[in-house]
Amino acid sequence: MKKQVFHFHEGKREMKHLLGGKGANLAEMTNAGLPVPPGFTITTEACNDFLESGNQLKKELLDQVWSALEQLEQETGKGFGDVENPLLVSVRSGSVFSMPGMMDTILNLGLNHETVEGLARLTQNPRFAYDSYRRFIQMFGDVVMGVEHYQFERIIQRQKKRVHVTHETELTANDWQEVIQQFLDLIQEETGSDFPQSPHEQMKHAIQAVFLSWNNDRAKIYRQIHDISDRLGTAVNIQMMVFGNMGEDSGTGVAFSRNPSTGENELYGEFLINAQGEDVVAGIRTPQPIRILEEKMPEIYRQFQQISKQLEMHYQDMQDIEFTIERGTLYILQTRAGKRTAQSAVKIAVDMVEEGIIGKEDALLRVDPNQLSQMLHRRLNPNQELKIIAKGLPASPGAASGKIIFDADDAEKLAADGQRVILVRPETTPEDIHGIIAAQGVLTSRGGMTSHAAVVARGMGKACICGCEQLKIDLRKKIVEVDSFTLKEGDMISIDGSTGQVIFGKVPLIDPELTPEFKKILSWADQVRKLQVRANADNPEDAAKARELGAEGIGLCRTEHMFMEADRVPIVQQMILAETEEERQEALWKLLPMQKNDFKGIFREMDGLPVTIRLLDPPLHEFLPNLEDLVVELTELRITGGDSVEIAQKENLLKKVRSLHEFNPMLGHRGCRLGLIYPEIYLMQVEAIFQAAKECMAEGRKVIPEIMIPLVGHVNELKELRGLIDEVASRVDFSHEYTVGTMIEIPRAAITADQIAEQADFFSFGTNDLTQTTFGFSRDDAEGKFLHQYIENKILEENPFISIDQEGVGSLIKMGVEKGKQVKSKLKTGICGEHGGEKKSIEFCHDVGLDYVSCSPFRVPLARLASAQASLKKKNN
Amino acid sequence: MKKQVFHFHEGKREMKHLLGGKGANLAEMTNAGLPVPPGFTITTEACNDFLESGNQLKKELLDQVWSALEQLEQETGKGFGDVENPLLVSVRSGSVFSMPGMMDTILNLGLNHETVEGLARLTQNPRFAYDSYRRFIQMFGDVVMGVEHYQFERIIQRQKKRVHVTHETELTANDWQEVIQQFLDLIQEETGSDFPQSPHEQMKHAIQAVFLSWNNDRAKIYRQIHDISDRLGTAVNIQMMVFGNMGEDSGTGVAFSRNPSTGENELYGEFLINAQGEDVVAGIRTPQPIRILEEKMPEIYRQFQQISKQLEMHYQDMQDIEFTIERGTLYILQTRAGKRTAQSAVKIAVDMVEEGIIGKEDALLRVDPNQLSQMLHRRLNPNQELKIIAKGLPASPGAASGKIIFDADDAEKLAADGQRVILVRPETTPEDIHGIIAAQGVLTSRGGMTSHAAVVARGMGKACICGCEQLKIDLRKKIVEVDSFTLKEGDMISIDGSTGQVIFGKVPLIDPELTPEFKKILSWADQVRKLQVRANADNPEDAAKARELGAEGIGLCRTEHMFMEADRVPIVQQMILAETEEERQEALWKLLPMQKNDFKGIFREMDGLPVTIRLLDPPLHEFLPNLEDLVVELTELRITGGDSVEIAQKENLLKKVRSLHEFNPMLGHRGCRLGLIYPEIYLMQVEAIFQAAKECMAEGRKVIPEIMIPLVGHVNELKELRGLIDEVASRVDFSHEYTVGTMIEIPRAAITADQIAEQADFFSFGTNDLTQTTFGFSRDDAEGKFLHQYIENKILEENPFISIDQEGVGSLIKMGVEKGKQVKSKLKTGICGEHGGEKKSIEFCHDVGLDYVSCSPFRVPLARLASAQASLKKKNN
Repeated sequence: MKKQVFHFHEGKREMKHLLGGKGANLAEMTNAGLPVPPGFTITTEACNDFLESGNQLKKELLDQVWSALEQLEQETGKGFGDVENPLLVSVRSGSVFSMPGMMDTILNLGLNHETVEGLARLTQNPRFAYDSYRRFIQMFGDVVMGVEHYQFERIIQRQKKRVHVTHETELTANDWQEVIQQFLDLIQEETGSDFPQSPHEQMKHAIQAVFLSWNNDRAKIYRQIHDISDRLGTAVNIQMMVFGNMGEDSGTGVAFSRNPSTGENELYGEFLINAQGEDVVAGIRTPQPIRILEEKMPEIYRQFQQISKQLEMHYQDMQDIEFTIERGTLYILQTRAGKRTAQSAVKIAVDMVEEGIIGKEDALLRVDPNQLSQMLHRRLNPNQELKIIAKGLPASPGAASGKIIFDADDAEKLAADGQRVILVRPETTPEDIHGIIAAQGVLTSRGGMTSHAAVVARGMGKACICGCEQLKIDLRKKIVEVDSFTLKEGDMISIDGSTGQVIFGKVPLIDPELTPEFKKILSWADQVRKLQVRANADNPEDAAKARELGAEGIGLCRTEHMFMEADRVPIVQQMILAETEEERQEALWKLLPMQKNDFKGIFREMDGLPVTIRLLDPPLHEFLPNLEDLVVELTELRITGGDSVEIAQKENLLKKVRSLHEFNPMLGHRGCRLGLIYPEIYLMQVEAIFQAAKECMAEGRKVIPEIMIPLVGHVNELKELRGLIDEVASRVDFSHEYTVGTMIEIPRAAITADQIAEQADFFSFGTNDLTQTTFGFSRDDAEGKFLHQYIENKILEENPFISIDQEGVGSLIKMGVEKGKQVKSKLKTGICGEHGGEKKSIEFCHDVGLDYVSCSPFRVPLARLASAQASLKKKNN
Repeated sequence: MKKQVFHFHEGKREMKHLLGGKGANLAEMTNAGLPVPPGFTITTEACNDFLESGNQLKKELLDQVWSALEQLEQETGKGFGDVENPLLVSVRSGSVFSMPGMMDTILNLGLNHETVEGLARLTQNPRFAYDSYRRFIQMFGDVVMGVEHYQFERIIQRQKKRVHVTHETELTANDWQEVIQQFLDLIQEETGSDFPQSPHEQMKHAIQAVFLSWNNDRAKIYRQIHDISDRLGTAVNIQMMVFGNMGEDSGTGVAFSRNPSTGENELYGEFLINAQGEDVVAGIRTPQPIRILEEKMPEIYRQFQQISKQLEMHYQDMQDIEFTIERGTLYILQTRAGKRTAQSAVKIAVDMVEEGIIGKEDALLRVDPNQLSQMLHRRLNPNQELKIIAKGLPASPGAASGKIIFDADDAEKLAADGQRVILVRPETTPEDIHGIIAAQGVLTSRGGMTSHAAVVARGMGKACICGCEQLKIDLRKKIVEVDSFTLKEGDMISIDGSTGQVIFGKVPLIDPELTPEFKKILSWADQVRKLQVRANADNPEDAAKARELGAEGIGLCRTEHMFMEADRVPIVQQMILAETEEERQEALWKLLPMQKNDFKGIFREMDGLPVTIRLLDPPLHEFLPNLEDLVVELTELRITGGDSVEIAQKENLLKKVRSLHEFNPMLGHRGCRLGLIYPEIYLMQVEAIFQAAKECMAEGRKVIPEIMIPLVGHVNELKELRGLIDEVASRVDFSHEYTVGTMIEIPRAAITADQIAEQADFFSFGTNDLTQTTFGFSRDDAEGKFLHQYIENKILEENPFISIDQEGVGSLIKMGVEKGKQVKSKLKTGICGEHGGEKKSIEFCHDVGLDYVSCSPFRVPLARLASAQASLKKKNN
């Protein structure tokens, strides 16, 4: 049989897959000469063998365990089950990736009626011995024998009451003896079995229990959330017990080698005198800050400080260290990379570079790009009780508090009075834009991640929750009901657009702060990354923000949002409803100077950097009133005998709305299909671009316009429109450079990318639509109806609208890039879907050789770092 | 310079690309020793040179023409421009593919003031000479000099009036001389130029005019319709004139070697004594049937009969022959394969095999599969004046006449009284099914080729026109307006579902007939084809029809139509609206026996053949009332103070309809996504299948059930549902063979076909949905809004919903087949979209190696023949 049991001194860090994270660390520390209690590790392979064989502990494994145990006895000079000098051990799980608290642990194993007496004699501390024994019974009873924890606690509570004490520490040896008897009775009663007295028997059961805990519910859920394979299995660490509860010269604690919240280079943690580790965790006694240890045990503190630095140097990372002091001797029980906040992660990484502990590249790999985004938005104070009343889709990150307002006009008025408001609507339309601008955040009961509210709010970097279907909004009564709860206009609520949580009342928020370390690590990222990072921005403010956060151009400037501004909607509607070519042209002439000014504002901000402008994309009916509302209005007018002129007008409007109505707007008359059927719209937009560019250049600015055609599926579409653009350029005498490219956002475009490349200067993969068409489901419909369950049931590993589906959509992107570059090696390629701001997708973009990613301004820092990490990973592979 | 002029005896059939169809035929006939007037051909290359060089007739070309002309003079013993014995020629276009009447022709070229006198002398027939001259001036004036035809006609009319005659034949030589003078004046007046007197000048202009006519509007449109490349160019044929108008021993005619309407082996055509060919075409004089020629000129008739047979043998096909008799001598002017009706095509092909003229394989390639479909539906009599009042989408082929009825119940009643009705509705819903069954055909003003009406009608083989937006239907008043025209209930209309034409009044229809030849040619097709042909059928009647027409199984049995039957809709709605699991299960228990009986009916009909049953596909809201209607009803009820219980019920229903409402139903909660979220529906269906199969097998029938999962995009979907199906099989103790497969109808399925194949016994490409998702447009939206213009403007070559887009969608199919078979070499693959009944798509299916195509029952014969042709073409390549 393979070796499945390793003494600590036989292991090393590189054996993590076999020994688990904890086992590998214990081995590493042992070999580094640190004061680690001796022990051995049973491998993850043994766990998998066990689980695969129908939960059989094989004799061969047990032989190895017994032999390791003998060696441990020799090392410690103690005997397992020896009444004179009993060896007590801890039995802990330890998987490859940290799963804190998810699996089981048993301490003080080896105690029984006899050895507890030996321990009492040996330590001359009967109280300690019985306390240890009852702890062991309690844990073993719970974990191995399945007696619920609270039942043991109840016995302790009763005992305390009976002897009139408040704290457990006040219970005497006798008290514990009584408790032990009651524990044993409880177990016998509940399970019908006796508590095993043989230490070897105890160990067999404990190993078995730890193996089985790999598949308990909470461990499975944790793995699912953290994307950890179910097939790794857990190792089991068996280690000599040391005791922090042997008196006032003993203790236990947990400390971080640096501050996990701020990143300051200082010990941070807490400890308890005369206690075992679980006391710290259980929260029964309040631990003291670690600096108090310096006063109480200065020598130990100094030693710990030194070990902490040593561990940090050894692992080249901030450490989370568990320690125990037994009668004045310091033991290190565990060390691992410490969890930390975004700010701390950044500061530690930068500081460690400056302290010479790690290189810049290591620093870049240390920070999770997702954390960077947290640092850019106002957020909820994490140390705060929240009254969560509902949950919707996290449509735009950041947190906000304000008064509930149901109407855009009201929102504008109150905001003008300096009040903070949250706009609450069933859904928003272009006519609500001024309300969204005025509000701190937006909350809707309908619509998905791509609904109007979501898209507009993300563009503005404003908190937004969409599709919160629990809300029953009554616009007439100006109330919103959630379950039995009713909120009215003016009530305070808070929303967290990063989680989708709707919170009752006002909540203090933490403002974002761009620390010097934040800037420094991004500047290092810029030196390493190959991908350019651009931003999606539709107005000068967003463009400025994007530039401030390091964007190297605009990868997607959507022009429909310009059409949606409140003062323009009537003109846009006039254009759509035009009966004649002239009427339509008249409306377009009114829009032209407006569009020109939009573009000028953006060009000025992006002086010297490229700006990719996408011509009008959405179907025209998006700019008209809602069909259903219109039908209701008209029915009302008809029945109540309304004004006949008004009825006729509404009927006419309804006719147009109906004629533009689409069964599947996603798959309808939009994108370049609009430009081909109504070329005058695109002509106006292109003229506005060229005129704006000319005027900005006349001001001495450098403008690099890139005109992008949406939704191309056949090369002829692009060819025709490209011709039209070139005609406008020559008509308005635009003699500077410009490029014309296309979105690759429907499968046929990727499949025929070689043909399309003939007509394109650049490709921009629109992965939102490409995902929808490749999967054949629309985001709004899928997320509301089945996608959630798909992910829960593991039909899909991940939400493909969040992280690129590499097998399906990714194959098309790869095909698009390959076929495109085959025809035109200098073809510029990028991505401008929301995936452009998601780290795994960015790594994919790097791997398939795109030139740039484009994402919302607030995701630019994330993208810069993720791009750098992608470069480094590729290099290191 | 290259040789660009060929004498007829220098050419042959194989030079068709260079000499055009007519030129090649003239050469072929000349070399076969037929009495063809001598002449030469200017090549299509010369035409292209001319067009590419900015319409320059190169000197080198003219040199070759003059030298050919000299040779022609020697051959005929006549002189071009020779007053004594003038050579007159015709100048005709002749492209590679026949484009009858699209380009220009000039006859009698070579005549001028002098040669006309010579001709008069030589023939001793001045009237004939001046008639010929005026004909020449008229044609040349029109074609070359651009004077409109009617202006010449007006002069002739005036002349006839002046001399008081009715027919042109009554005009004398003097009359024609006067007409000629007026013609020449007219030309001078209109163009400012004199009519050219030099025959060489005339010829230069004529050649130029023919070249230019390649690009006239009607020729361009013809090529567009018939899919002929613009780059082929036309040849020009210059041939000695022969004259059918030289007296009572002369004449001209056109005849087919067999009857082009019935296929009978008999001469079929017409002729005119003392006339030129254009007289036959122009319809001024009514020609006589060809058999009269036997009486009038028995010797000529016999000779023509023999030549006709000779030509048929030579070309091995039925010929369309133009001839002229000049003073008792027969000349053959042209021969080509004759156009023919479907019935004739089939009969001729079969007869020719039996006569030993061609082989079976030739016969199979002779018949256009599309024609076969015509033979299966009632159709309009083509020799009939139609009053077409509107045009919609040709949603289901065949023609029908009947009374206009606006309501399904009324339709059912009238039909029960033996009346024929056409159901006219804005659109149909499942609740109209009984009306569709009762009607002769369906006409809707909204909805596309995949609308409810279209799909149901196609399934029933019933005529249907959809989306006829010109119709303004007022259901309350029971009238329909078309432009200024109003039709009311009970008025007769006819519809042609093959063309989309709506016709006023009753029109006689031709009933379909399956001739013995039809059956014979299909039996030959079956011997040759590799593709299996199956049918899409959802009920026993369709299954029986499919089997009768030669289907080898059912490739797609849609189960949603079973849900849509009028008596089941309430139960289906009960299932959808169920608030509890039990309520839903109760409704499903009611549906189970119904579904079982559906399947039993189909299994019985298909005894021994495979039946692929697709589990429920459409989104559930399709079975509920329309949202908009419900909103109107509810608004009305509220305003008019309706019954509060009714309001509450409607509100509840509206809530459910709204909760199931989808932004993009095509991309919504349908297909296997339904089966995964509501497994109980699929469980019921699968149980019904297995129970039905068991019961039919107990009756001694052989049942081969193939269960098909729709809309799979990820292998896990199929894996999960396959597990469910296997569970049901074991639960109901179904121990016979069955297979489980999937539709490949979204891009991701094709891209990951290797993974999906692991779980599938067969793939069925659903090219309707695959086309929609690959192009990113829905058929209903595209066809109503932009697809038509796309095709007109040549952005797309063809409607991809009719013929598979081979570059885009086809690439995915290829990928799907390759990846699938790579993993599972015995994977069965087929197609069940509407493309399965379209000939080019069928050829594509053959080429990519599919195992079968499945199409609507009435398309099965087409598919059998098209599959055979695909095999033969592949073999011949």
